[in-house]
Amino acid sequence: MTGILKTTQKNLMLFTGRAHRALSEEIAQKLGTPLVPTEAYAFANSEIYVRFNESVRGCDAFVIQSHTAPVNEWIMEHLIMVDALKRASAKRITVVLPFYGYARQDKKHRGREPISARLMADLFKTAGADRLMAVDLHTAQIQGFFDGPVDHLMALPILADYVREKYGEEQLAVVSPDAGRIKVAEYWSNSLGGVPLAFIHKTRDITRPNQSVAKRVVGEVTGRTCVLVDDMIDSGGTICQAADALMAEGASSVVVAATHAIFSEPAVQRLRDSVAREVVVTNTLPLSEDARALDKITELSIAPLISRAIKEVFEDGSVTSMFDGVA
Amino acid sequence: MTGILKTTQKNLMLFTGRAHRALSEEIAQKLGTPLVPTEAYAFANSEIYVRFNESVRGCDAFVIQSHTAPVNEWIMEHLIMVDALKRASAKRITVVLPFYGYARQDKKHRGREPISARLMADLFKTAGADRLMAVDLHTAQIQGFFDGPVDHLMALPILADYVREKYGEEQLAVVSPDAGRIKVAEYWSNSLGGVPLAFIHKTRDITRPNQSVAKRVVGEVTGRTCVLVDDMIDSGGTICQAADALMAEGASSVVVAATHAIFSEPAVQRLRDSVAREVVVTNTLPLSEDARALDKITELSIAPLISRAIKEVFEDGSVTSMFDGVA
Amino acid sequence: MTGILKTTQKNLMLFTGRAHRALSEEIAQKLGTPLVPTEAYAFANSEIYVRFNESVRGCDAFVIQSHTAPVNEWIMEHLIMVDALKRASAKRITVVLPFYGYARQDKKHRGREPISARLMADLFKTAGADRLMAVDLHTAQIQGFFDGPVDHLMALPILADYVREKYGEEQLAVVSPDAGRIKVAEYWSNSLGGVPLAFIHKTRDITRPNQSVAKRVVGEVTGRTCVLVDDMIDSGGTICQAADALMAEGASSVVVAATHAIFSEPAVQRLRDSVAREVVVTNTLPLSEDARALDKITELSIAPLISRAIKEVFEDGSVTSMFDGVA
Amino acid sequence: MTGILKTTQKNLMLFTGRAHRALSEEIAQKLGTPLVPTEAYAFANSEIYVRFNESVRGCDAFVIQSHTAPVNEWIMEHLIMVDALKRASAKRITVVLPFYGYARQDKKHRGREPISARLMADLFKTAGADRLMAVDLHTAQIQGFFDGPVDHLMALPILADYVREKYGEEQLAVVSPDAGRIKVAEYWSNSLGGVPLAFIHKTRDITRPNQSVAKRVVGEVTGRTCVLVDDMIDSGGTICQAADALMAEGASSVVVAATHAIFSEPAVQRLRDSVAREVVVTNTLPLSEDARALDKITELSIAPLISRAIKEVFEDGSVTSMFDGVA
Amino acid sequence: MTGILKTTQKNLMLFTGRAHRALSEEIAQKLGTPLVPTEAYAFANSEIYVRFNESVRGCDAFVIQSHTAPVNEWIMEHLIMVDALKRASAKRITVVLPFYGYARQDKKHRGREPISARLMADLFKTAGADRLMAVDLHTAQIQGFFDGPVDHLMALPILADYVREKYGEEQLAVVSPDAGRIKVAEYWSNSLGGVPLAFIHKTRDITRPNQSVAKRVVGEVTGRTCVLVDDMIDSGGTICQAADALMAEGASSVVVAATHAIFSEPAVQRLRDSVAREVVVTNTLPLSEDARALDKITELSIAPLISRAIKEVFEDGSVTSMFDGVA
Amino acid sequence: MTGILKTTQKNLMLFTGRAHRALSEEIAQKLGTPLVPTEAYAFANSEIYVRFNESVRGCDAFVIQSHTAPVNEWIMEHLIMVDALKRASAKRITVVLPFYGYARQDKKHRGREPISARLMADLFKTAGADRLMAVDLHTAQIQGFFDGPVDHLMALPILADYVREKYGEEQLAVVSPDAGRIKVAEYWSNSLGGVPLAFIHKTRDITRPNQSVAKRVVGEVTGRTCVLVDDMIDSGGTICQAADALMAEGASSVVVAATHAIFSEPAVQRLRDSVAREVVVTNTLPLSEDARALDKITELSIAPLISRAIKEVFEDGSVTSMFDGVA
Repeated sequence: MTGILKTTQKNLMLFTGRAHRALSEEIAQKLGTPLVPTEAYAFANSEIYVRFNESVRGCDAFVIQSHTAPVNEWIMEHLIMVDALKRASAKRITVVLPFYGYARQDKKHRGREPISARLMADLFKTAGADRLMAVDLHTAQIQGFFDGPVDHLMALPILADYVREKYGEEQLAVVSPDAGRIKVAEYWSNSLGGVPLAFIHKTRDITRPNQSVAKRVVGEVTGRTCVLVDDMIDSGGTICQAADALMAEGASSVVVAATHAIFSEPAVQRLRDSVAREVVVTNTLPLSEDARALDKITELSIAPLISRAIKEVFEDGSVTSMFDGVA
Repeated sequence: MTGILKTTQKNLMLFTGRAHRALSEEIAQKLGTPLVPTEAYAFANSEIYVRFNESVRGCDAFVIQSHTAPVNEWIMEHLIMVDALKRASAKRITVVLPFYGYARQDKKHRGREPISARLMADLFKTAGADRLMAVDLHTAQIQGFFDGPVDHLMALPILADYVREKYGEEQLAVVSPDAGRIKVAEYWSNSLGGVPLAFIHKTRDITRPNQSVAKRVVGEVTGRTCVLVDDMIDSGGTICQAADALMAEGASSVVVAATHAIFSEPAVQRLRDSVAREVVVTNTLPLSEDARALDKITELSIAPLISRAIKEVFEDGSVTSMFDGVA
Repeated sequence: MTGILKTTQKNLMLFTGRAHRALSEEIAQKLGTPLVPTEAYAFANSEIYVRFNESVRGCDAFVIQSHTAPVNEWIMEHLIMVDALKRASAKRITVVLPFYGYARQDKKHRGREPISARLMADLFKTAGADRLMAVDLHTAQIQGFFDGPVDHLMALPILADYVREKYGEEQLAVVSPDAGRIKVAEYWSNSLGGVPLAFIHKTRDITRPNQSVAKRVVGEVTGRTCVLVDDMIDSGGTICQAADALMAEGASSVVVAATHAIFSEPAVQRLRDSVAREVVVTNTLPLSEDARALDKITELSIAPLISRAIKEVFEDGSVTSMFDGVA
Repeated sequence: MTGILKTTQKNLMLFTGRAHRALSEEIAQKLGTPLVPTEAYAFANSEIYVRFNESVRGCDAFVIQSHTAPVNEWIMEHLIMVDALKRASAKRITVVLPFYGYARQDKKHRGREPISARLMADLFKTAGADRLMAVDLHTAQIQGFFDGPVDHLMALPILADYVREKYGEEQLAVVSPDAGRIKVAEYWSNSLGGVPLAFIHKTRDITRPNQSVAKRVVGEVTGRTCVLVDDMIDSGGTICQAADALMAEGASSVVVAATHAIFSEPAVQRLRDSVAREVVVTNTLPLSEDARALDKITELSIAPLISRAIKEVFEDGSVTSMFDGVA
Repeated sequence: MTGILKTTQKNLMLFTGRAHRALSEEIAQKLGTPLVPTEAYAFANSEIYVRFNESVRGCDAFVIQSHTAPVNEWIMEHLIMVDALKRASAKRITVVLPFYGYARQDKKHRGREPISARLMADLFKTAGADRLMAVDLHTAQIQGFFDGPVDHLMALPILADYVREKYGEEQLAVVSPDAGRIKVAEYWSNSLGGVPLAFIHKTRDITRPNQSVAKRVVGEVTGRTCVLVDDMIDSGGTICQAADALMAEGASSVVVAATHAIFSEPAVQRLRDSVAREVVVTNTLPLSEDARALDKITELSIAPLISRAIKEVFEDGSVTSMFDGVA
Repeated sequence: MTGILKTTQKNLMLFTGRAHRALSEEIAQKLGTPLVPTEAYAFANSEIYVRFNESVRGCDAFVIQSHTAPVNEWIMEHLIMVDALKRASAKRITVVLPFYGYARQDKKHRGREPISARLMADLFKTAGADRLMAVDLHTAQIQGFFDGPVDHLMALPILADYVREKYGEEQLAVVSPDAGRIKVAEYWSNSLGGVPLAFIHKTRDITRPNQSVAKRVVGEVTGRTCVLVDDMIDSGGTICQAADALMAEGASSVVVAATHAIFSEPAVQRLRDSVAREVVVTNTLPLSEDARALDKITELSIAPLISRAIKEVFEDGSVTSMFDGVA
């Protein structure tokens, strides 16, 4: 046969935007390859410029950016990086989203709203993304918004291991701050060896529906260390009120656990003032100095999880099997 | 200017597949235009043939098919009708789905599953659909699966009006058979003027997580007429067990209300044997003779809702405002 | 250069739907790799569920399904399998179609018909198919319906070898049941070493066009063993009438040969009652018990052909050269 | 409602390339609107330039070009015109193809061939075509190559009317020059009131398959005026040999009828020297001076057909019904 | 014909993002229709929320947003508005860009850069834009980046009228600050009745190429009022140095004219300190208080131009003819 | 894991159209692999036929065609080759364009023009091109017209090396024939070690704008050997008039250098009669016999550049680094 024959090689290359560089560096270190040197800055009028400082031709690119505030800034940088990779002949582009921006706008709550979570999936596809990797999406249906493979990672094992080790000897209960998110609490309950479940019914009091919203604890929490779990903590209102309700109901203490520490104002202050004994989060989003200064906040690293998933994807291993028995 | 100028007219044309012709005919009657005469049959080897018997050029087509069993048969017929309309120069094609097939496969519950609800949206797009209209989608996120406008109709006002009129004098409670679907129950509660909410906690008993699944009623139902609400009744197991639990908890009676009466085997028998006093459903799906023969089953027509929505779409009115104050 | 370098490997994985598992197993055996374990079943309301039981990440997937009755059921299962493979990161997906459903609806015979054969090609593309492999498409133009490579396999060598070996000593003639399909008969004639051609003119009698349809044999068949050839036998009417016409014209016997044994009702009975001496088909479609019980039906396996083609595709060999000198 | 309301008007605008301007002008005249003034010429290096001299915003554009030689030149001009219309905000673009270039390359006859007929359909779609209108496509499957509506016009009524009027009193037979195209001859037979059918079997002599190709007449033609029909006459070899065969078989005379007069060298000379009494074609392609000078060539105008079809499309009438009873 | 016939109406609806509301209001006023009431705000974590407060079904939507700093914020809001309009069944969506963000990144200056101007065009297409309208794109090739019609408006007539009226009696020269943008200056020269052209050669001194960059005036400017023209003023460095060079060359005064007043830091201060006598710009971008406070800055309104263009687009008039004789 | 594992190999295969076979053969020779044997010819009616004579399955295809006159002929052949490769399962298709046809129609100069350069990019994408490789595009923005990677090669090093070697001892100046193309001249100046720049101002005389076009030399050229540089020479008018202007301004001699020798009529005659001392071009386009016969025309080969770039692309090396320090 005519032609020049050659054995094919693939090359994993790791890229990061500027939103949360520390996490990307930790992932790179765990994988054992440095981040590809990249110029990225904003021009005077705030347009972003990106350029990679070495050839990326034919590479298996993983582009990490966590959509922390200012969200639109970092999403746009992420899209521009993907465009530059596509035009520079990267072979495959996996967009890595420790936190997926706009995930909460995943449906039209009312007429004439956007479905921004779907829009984001389409924008990344258009820019050139072949695949997505994300941690704890707000709803699992978002996987269906992207026209291609999505690797959905769960932080639960990391968080639960920590809680089990530290509080395993106490009388535990797992509590969801919201009736709509009990499923997550169930996974936690299983992970902690079957501890009791409870949740906060934060809509109207069942017996007085027309009155203002009350927090009613459903399930037995008296005398227990309550592990209050959610996917994200934004401004902290919901979670702090839930903690109060639990203490009011006789809980012995409250430990908060969540994957994404958005910590919008005034979350840090609220958590500081809260009855919560400890707040365990991961570093999918960068923590402010304020937050880091708070003793009760414990930050676990998501980097081992993401780096292992990237390795599995690169080597055609299984990502799903990383979560066997979890959910 | 060169050319031949003419005032533009639009023509609403209504098409139906064979899955649930009675509903389409009712919609047509309400709209005041007959269904477009259509040949549709299966060849000896089960391939489906479709042809419209009059010109559809330039029309504003609404193609109704409800995805009842055999689901794949009727979805394929639906797709083929859309293809034929596209190739025959229909100007705009709205796919009307009283019941959207595969809506429950809206995410990957485990690795290597399909997301069939997204696939269906894509298949209709590929065949030529410009828009979708659907009634009570299993999860609202499915709206984001289609790349185009989706009109999402709610059967709640129809069902709630009936219940209010018939049982409004009694002491009511609204009950969700499942913690994950409380939101629907909340809408009901509002619609019925703020009656108390309750739900069945059907996962493991909170205090004994390792034991087999129990049904625990959360909320006050004693002495009340419980309106047990859900989006669909498939084989009827969940709903009948929930009714039992409510009666065991001291409810005075149970009325079941759901939009989609799938009624797979052995739903009809289960409902017949159930403690439920009445089962109120709509005709988004065709009812079997058996079901119709059952006195306690009440079938309300969804046709007024769909026909009004079609009219609004055709006349550039507002569909959303049909549900003002509902959700 | 930055990055982690690795030699690329590819992995052929074989998948099958439930329509005709026996054929897929034979193909797998010939290739020397088992079918990937797969869960596939219908829910109570007839929606299909599919899941693969091992990681398919990065694989070169071949997904076999033959579109036998109920055609729409098996096409939908086929599409859902492709969707699941795409979302599970299969690297390349080849849809293998021993029999391509809806191939006969390949044009608009009249206005406002669908072109379902094109629609099927588009649906598979949308679900995620990169390539198609099909056996004896009804018209070769269908290759142009798919936006990508199509490997078109021919069963002729398999069928002709059998006929040559068994009837090669007799005085043969090759006969087409239809003027429109003479080209296939020509290939047969060449394959059998240049035996005479004939065909049945089944439209109106040339000299009395207004009379009802007659069967007129064109070409010399008297005293010959007629090999009556077609791409498919559906309900068997055409082929049996052709056989009658040949015997009436003085043929010594009739042997029927066709690739696809659709055998819709009442094909088996018709063939049993027919003057045909033998009916040779392949197993692109599953044969009913009835058909297998019929002595005069001979089923040749298409598995060696398909497995060899899959191997050539996987190893970047040539599929075309498998048919050198055939057509 | 906010906004500025206005009744919508549509404006039919007619455009032509330079390949066959006479036909476009005739169509324009019949429609009663002039062709839109257009600059079109080739630069020194043969690149084509096109510009419309009046606003086309919002128009319903019909762009006529017949793909005569040099085919590639005119197809490219056609594509460029469509691009210019799209970018100038035409509302809908219908590509009118009196002759569709590359229609004969509609399948892979052998491995590693293009399917150029599909490619052309895709190129027009890419340039911006919403719809196609074509006359007598080489195979009807080509309709399925375009992803959108195709209006397929038939010249048969025009040709048959002429033949009926001129030769209706004689003893007629309709003859296909090729077994593969008998279907067209059948339509003719019906159109002429049921005259007998015949065809030329131009492959190997049935009884001596290994010998060189012979022309065998199938059907009764002795003493008859044979109407030899085909979709196109390219270099004229096939049709002239068929005419010879018919005369040799005892036909009283031969009249040739075809839609597309490609007349590549040396078609005109062959026809001049042929036994054919008359050659009736349409003006879907421009005739050379040579051809026009030949008395026996009769050119019928396709303009009435195309202009009527354009009118039906513009006014949302029915194109199909123009051919009721034909095929 | 079956169906419900109705005359079609179209409804122009005007939408605005929050980047430069004053301009949109002026456009709305000129068109005589209010902006559609819209909720738009950022959540605590900076994600943007948008919702329209009345039905937009079937409307001809024009969505205005000028990409001022923070550019990424406003582009994302623009995209989200388009998504919401698409999903709410707007009939046609025209994205109006008084200033097109990222227009300067219109090619790869070096390897591994993005082409962000193309990316933006693709993102708007993906979100649902049918058409673009933009004022003075940085390079005209950007029109070719969008897959659809682009209306390209020129501010030149507005700026030139002002300059002609105020300075028409003086001895003028038109000067380009950059050799690459002389074409714009030529249009100006024509517009001002043929005044002389000059430009600044800002690359290396022609005779000493290795020295640092100098500003050399090419053309005769001594004793003249120099109209220094460009498409945009960003941080003002280039334009102020050019003005210095002109005065050094003997110009009697310098008047600066530019379409887009980006005015990034420290543009206002530079202009204040500059020798320029007047700086004429349009309001395609919002001016800061600082800039407005500067006497020498004159802001002309682009609203009459944009509103007229929107009207022409809505009414299928001609936008091009608005600029007859300009370029 | 189930499946058949195999190390992946890639195979570079080189294809050429008929436009400029000599160049392709030179490229092939430098790469050390023959061109893939291909049938390509025109049918009687000018439709093009292409077929490859060996299997191309899985290959990394580079398809070379230079768009010389007749441009449309060769572009169509190019598209058809890409289609055939796609359908024959080539793994990746890189379209190699030594000269990119229609590059000059890269924007709408006036309303209702096409943007043919974008159209060509889209047509190649549609046919199946994954990537483009081009030499000296007319404007760099054209890279943004293709939806995928574009390798943009520069002939400058080849041309400049020749000029430096031959004329390096003389007093040089680099001259652009047009103000709009000074950037190219700057690259040349750098490449030649910083020689002075000049250019011809070919628009209206700056001091008498209403008079006819004059050629004014800007920059110091007296007594110098002027290297007059451009991307292409079409009919030669501009370049010859520029040479005249330079000599009139006192240049000692003029050497012309350009990448693309289009040489449309009457370029060769003009160059023969011109004052230019030498005309240096590359063989991106085939030279006529006439041109080759002209002593003053020097043709340098672009083949080493293209072959090296192909090798880099095949081996995942860097193409950009081939031009380090150039631009």
